[in-house]
Amino acid sequence: MAIELALIGIGTGNPDHLTRAAETAMRAANLILLPRKGAAKSDLIDLRRAICADVLTDTTRVVEFDLPSREAQPDYLDAVDRWHDAIAAIWAREIATHLPDGGRLALLVWGDPSLYDSTIRIARRLDARIRLSFIPGITSLQALTAAHGVPLNALAAPVLVTTGRRLRDGGWPSGVDTLAVMLDGHCAFADLPPLGVHIWWGAYLGMPHQAIDAGPLADVAARIVATRAALRAEHGWIMDTYLLRRGEDAR
Amino acid sequence: MAIELALIGIGTGNPDHLTRAAETAMRAANLILLPRKGAAKSDLIDLRRAICADVLTDTTRVVEFDLPSREAQPDYLDAVDRWHDAIAAIWAREIATHLPDGGRLALLVWGDPSLYDSTIRIARRLDARIRLSFIPGITSLQALTAAHGVPLNALAAPVLVTTGRRLRDGGWPSGVDTLAVMLDGHCAFADLPPLGVHIWWGAYLGMPHQAIDAGPLADVAARIVATRAALRAEHGWIMDTYLLRRGEDAR
Ligand SMILES: C[S@@+](CC[C@H](N)C(=O)[O-])C[C@H]1O[C@@H](n2cnc3c(N)ncnc32)[C@H](O)[C@@H]1O
Ligand SMILES: C[S@@+](CC[C@H](N)C(=O)[O-])C[C@H]1O[C@@H](n2cnc3c(N)ncnc32)[C@H](O)[C@@H]1O
Repeated sequence: MAIELALIGIGTGNPDHLTRAAETAMRAANLILLPRKGAAKSDLIDLRRAICADVLTDTTRVVEFDLPSREAQPDYLDAVDRWHDAIAAIWAREIATHLPDGGRLALLVWGDPSLYDSTIRIARRLDARIRLSFIPGITSLQALTAAHGVPLNALAAPVLVTTGRRLRDGGWPSGVDTLAVMLDGHCAFADLPPLGVHIWWGAYLGMPHQAIDAGPLADVAARIVATRAALRAEHGWIMDTYLLRRGEDAR
Repeated sequence: MAIELALIGIGTGNPDHLTRAAETAMRAANLILLPRKGAAKSDLIDLRRAICADVLTDTTRVVEFDLPSREAQPDYLDAVDRWHDAIAAIWAREIATHLPDGGRLALLVWGDPSLYDSTIRIARRLDARIRLSFIPGITSLQALTAAHGVPLNALAAPVLVTTGRRLRDGGWPSGVDTLAVMLDGHCAFADLPPLGVHIWWGAYLGMPHQAIDAGPLADVAARIVATRAALRAEHGWIMDTYLLRRGEDAR
């Protein structure tokens, strides 16, 4: 009756991001649950299906299930909390259905499980007897810096990893000259005073249609906004992230 | 005569951190240069040797070379700059010696090449005709969060990645409730006002002698300081990193 649950980081779209540990944990699983999140991002589930087909042998069963959508609510954190409860309940149901006698379950997490992802928080809501394990994966920030060949930090300097919403609402935070921005649906970079700021931007990082751009923010912001809109229209969805640096090392 | 140089992130001590892309790039190389950094950290070069022995076939030559040590100098950034110049000159010499007719060179970078590592900066000093490529690797921060099963960020909140020196000199920076601290030789966490702060600490992450500890900073800081000193004495060197969180999500 014992259940083990592995949360496996799979990188951000390139199957070659998979680590040996991720492959081993996938093959060791009796069951892998793949969430379906609605039509627009079907590329993302297709990629997970392809990774499973490539890595797994017959001993692992792959089961897809539908994720509930999050209620649009005034209190964001409260809504997220309830959403996580709902997902944990669905996982518990799938576990009871597909592993009634116990076994090893795995979930494939985009990028790394620790970075702007709720899988760890949801897993902590499950029955405390379930043994959890965590396999790191390449994050979109690493795919971004690798695509550009640029260091995340200036020499011995700090980096703030933050969200588009925070940047839009609060402007450039004090005390730090490098920002790594994720979860930005609205190009918050375009509203910053651009003088002396360099941007390194990337979308669909690691995927066949990866797009990148970089330059002084004053010169390239409008171009990135236009590219992003065009790509989003073409593919029906977009995921992008970027690095902003000001000061001496911004070139 | 064309030279290609791949900077390959290898993770932080666990050979199973290697990605498929890293293995492919290692095998595609004609030459891998392994720097020797002095006796104390010989575990680190041993690990690189073991990874090479495990991954490579006969077609890749592995050559070790000695790194110069950094001059202790009042102007830190200036000394680092000169040190990087010196290393670039050594790489150029090794390339001329071992790849006189061109070919594919690879360097194995601890963790990810973009995070507190100078390999990218040094590579940019080489002859501009050398084609560079970058392969991301699992960072020590990801090994830390995976070992503890803890998210890097609180829900939709930012994270400052910083150094022990900055934390010691500047205290807890304003505007951010999570700090990921690297390059701390002096336990800067122990000098912070501990109230309401949680720490997740790890040393030798991914390695057989991995050590972790976590708890309210007020309860565990002294214990971590003592553990760290004992481990350092035992192994002759230590690398550790930690996450600090205050506010609601610090538990
Ligand atoms: C919910 S977070 C998940 C992050 C993920 N856990 C990681 O390690 O990268 C989603 C955000 O990550 C970034 N992202 C994820 N995959 C990406 C990709 N392939 N290209 C560009 N950005 C990506 C985008 O900023 C997106 O809004
Ligand atoms: C020069 S930086 C290199 C970081 C590396 N590029 C990465 O991606 O993690 C060295 C610092 O990384 C951290 N570090 C690297 N490897 C580690 C390990 N195996 N365990 C704990 N900390 C580690 C320590 O804070 C150390 O001072």
